[in-house]
Amino acid sequence: MYYSKLFGKTNKSKPADADSANARLLLQGGFVSQMAAGLYTYLPLGLRVLDKIKQIVREEMNAIDGQEISIPMLSPKEPWVATGRWDTIDVLFKLEGAGNKEYALQCTAEDLITPLVKEQTTSYKDFPLTLYQIQDKFRNEPRAKSGLLRGREFSMKDLYSFHLDQEGFAEYYERSKEAYLKVYRRCGLDAMVVKASGGDFTERFSHEFQVATEAGEDTVYVDKQTGEAYNKEIVDEVDLENTEKYTITKAIEVGNIFPLETRFSKAIGLQVQGADGQMKEVIMGSYGIGPSRVMGSIVEIHHDEAGIIWPESVAPFYAHIVPVNWEDESQKSVAEQLYLALQAKGVEVLLDDRVKRPGEKFADADLLGMPYRITVGRRAVEGFVELRPRKTGEIEELTVTEVIARLS
Amino acid sequence: MYYSKLFGKTNKSKPADADSANARLLLQGGFVSQMAAGLYTYLPLGLRVLDKIKQIVREEMNAIDGQEISIPMLSPKEPWVATGRWDTIDVLFKLEGAGNKEYALQCTAEDLITPLVKEQTTSYKDFPLTLYQIQDKFRNEPRAKSGLLRGREFSMKDLYSFHLDQEGFAEYYERSKEAYLKVYRRCGLDAMVVKASGGDFTERFSHEFQVATEAGEDTVYVDKQTGEAYNKEIVDEVDLENTEKYTITKAIEVGNIFPLETRFSKAIGLQVQGADGQMKEVIMGSYGIGPSRVMGSIVEIHHDEAGIIWPESVAPFYAHIVPVNWEDESQKSVAEQLYLALQAKGVEVLLDDRVKRPGEKFADADLLGMPYRITVGRRAVEGFVELRPRKTGEIEELTVTEVIARLS
Repeated sequence: MYYSKLFGKTNKSKPADADSANARLLLQGGFVSQMAAGLYTYLPLGLRVLDKIKQIVREEMNAIDGQEISIPMLSPKEPWVATGRWDTIDVLFKLEGAGNKEYALQCTAEDLITPLVKEQTTSYKDFPLTLYQIQDKFRNEPRAKSGLLRGREFSMKDLYSFHLDQEGFAEYYERSKEAYLKVYRRCGLDAMVVKASGGDFTERFSHEFQVATEAGEDTVYVDKQTGEAYNKEIVDEVDLENTEKYTITKAIEVGNIFPLETRFSKAIGLQVQGADGQMKEVIMGSYGIGPSRVMGSIVEIHHDEAGIIWPESVAPFYAHIVPVNWEDESQKSVAEQLYLALQAKGVEVLLDDRVKRPGEKFADADLLGMPYRITVGRRAVEGFVELRPRKTGEIEELTVTEVIARLS
Repeated sequence: MYYSKLFGKTNKSKPADADSANARLLLQGGFVSQMAAGLYTYLPLGLRVLDKIKQIVREEMNAIDGQEISIPMLSPKEPWVATGRWDTIDVLFKLEGAGNKEYALQCTAEDLITPLVKEQTTSYKDFPLTLYQIQDKFRNEPRAKSGLLRGREFSMKDLYSFHLDQEGFAEYYERSKEAYLKVYRRCGLDAMVVKASGGDFTERFSHEFQVATEAGEDTVYVDKQTGEAYNKEIVDEVDLENTEKYTITKAIEVGNIFPLETRFSKAIGLQVQGADGQMKEVIMGSYGIGPSRVMGSIVEIHHDEAGIIWPESVAPFYAHIVPVNWEDESQKSVAEQLYLALQAKGVEVLLDDRVKRPGEKFADADLLGMPYRITVGRRAVEGFVELRPRKTGEIEELTVTEVIARLS
């Protein structure tokens, strides 16, 4: 992509109302635009990141037998009434349509997927079953904040598992933890599994995936002896100040998994006759990762004073070619040669074809945060360019051929 | 995919309330499930089709310089008020959130994208500009009907182009027609370009893409002499019964493109200083294709008494292996060998691993409509299987090696 053609440019002034590093850097870099509080438009650069995260999530959910479906985001009132949640989910957006029909916008989907599974299954042979969707969810948040971390509309992967026995559920639940940790690793995030309250559904714990950072809203207590991590909300009151026992750290929640027991299958009457002829209630789990929240978290973790430092797996482009002087014929020609050669090797490349001061172009490259900057300067005429990893900033002079070999 | 593991099975009984071939066959085949009137869940088979159509659309929009973005589906009231459409779009879903904030759900996005382009552009050098998104749209339809053809939530690709001169606009508009026709060809649809009213925005025509079928809601008049096609709505009243002059045909609209002139740029104040120093209002066009509507239309066009006949480009799987007797060891072994060999060659394969009567399995294969059925029967033990294209039904006996070579 030629940068001059790209929709969404860097902005020299810091956005006034950005309350977090991710909001500030993503707005400033032209990755997103804010339409209203908690509502962000993904510009081409930002959408490339989001799509890569979604694809990583999709691959790991497929690897644990997830089958992808898509339930309408606009849903009728009835299933939410059937589970008793029409009036209890306070962030549920409700609306009315033609013929006085009432609807809700999905903020989660247990209420919708349980009747679907009831409709589409006939035998114990249909279980265990794992379904997921990746689409936007909506929360009627009183206070949207922190950029992509707490929005009114946001991307969500929600997976639901259905089992006929506790052992099968427990085994799948552990498998999902591994899959989740793999997602985070692939996205450049070092997440810990943290015990949290199971809420109204179960006496067991639920589990959160938390990434340690001062920017986090949550507080995680890590038991120094056992290494077990707990969300502050479930730590004994007497222990709350016990820095002997716990390491206390701020963190961002980037996912959570819940044992649902039979809370929804009971409400909907999702039962199935087992091989033994007995009717069984179906045991469920739900498993959520928000790709947009993951994107915001990546920026919180991977940035410095100058801008974002994208992990290679989710970077919008892998290489950023910066000709120092676009009006210099040999620099332009070497830059374009590199651009075509790298693309031919399947490398995603951004080329800064603007006539601007080098300092401004370098600052933009740092802000945008592609893993490798290739600087094409005076020595281009002799066939030399500079390779600079965003992460280390260490510049290496290489021939054009060497750079191509290194990056492809 | 092993069919026994697939979520969403064929249904022997025809859905009672299906008012169209696409609704009936997609429900019966387990491609979709109906949550409420006009609201369909995509089950794994259906989502595979929808995603393939979206990808074809994406590739062709990228080929005409489209840059993909994603504007929140939930949008604040203000931009709709600014264009004067908050009260004039009768199918706009409206809702209220925390703090008495009012929102609308996107049914189209001129009102949202024009302010975005105003925010993100600074110079005539930023134009021409072409942006699109692929996401669900919402219409508060009094009467949802015809399966995927008229829903309350549906998939939509909406592209918008921005130009500083009429010539540039006109040229792009013609390019978009070619891109649209390419999308339909790739999806197995033979679409015609049909002149229609430009509505309130322009004195020019807009253009629809129509696929001739008795199942269509629209009526297209094709001038026998010139070959020009017109939507009935713009044909002179005196000509309406003139079968000498026109061939009259029923058709489904599968896309439309609109010259918007300066209707939205004026309302939003999207102006830019030209190279000549003069301020110019930006000329816009909008271009829509509904992937879900295309999917419904494909089924309307490509089916027979027995079921769907998917074009190869959008079929959920390319080959459907049907072992006549899954309990026969040699049939099972040949079927699994084929399954693995084809997948290794990158062919998408469905394997019917159910213990069912052959007649029932063949009927399901016809209903599901994959391009090739591979029947593994008695001669499997000698290394022979049958290849049967869904379209022709002509059975050919081949060796396993020959089938693999033929399909990969």
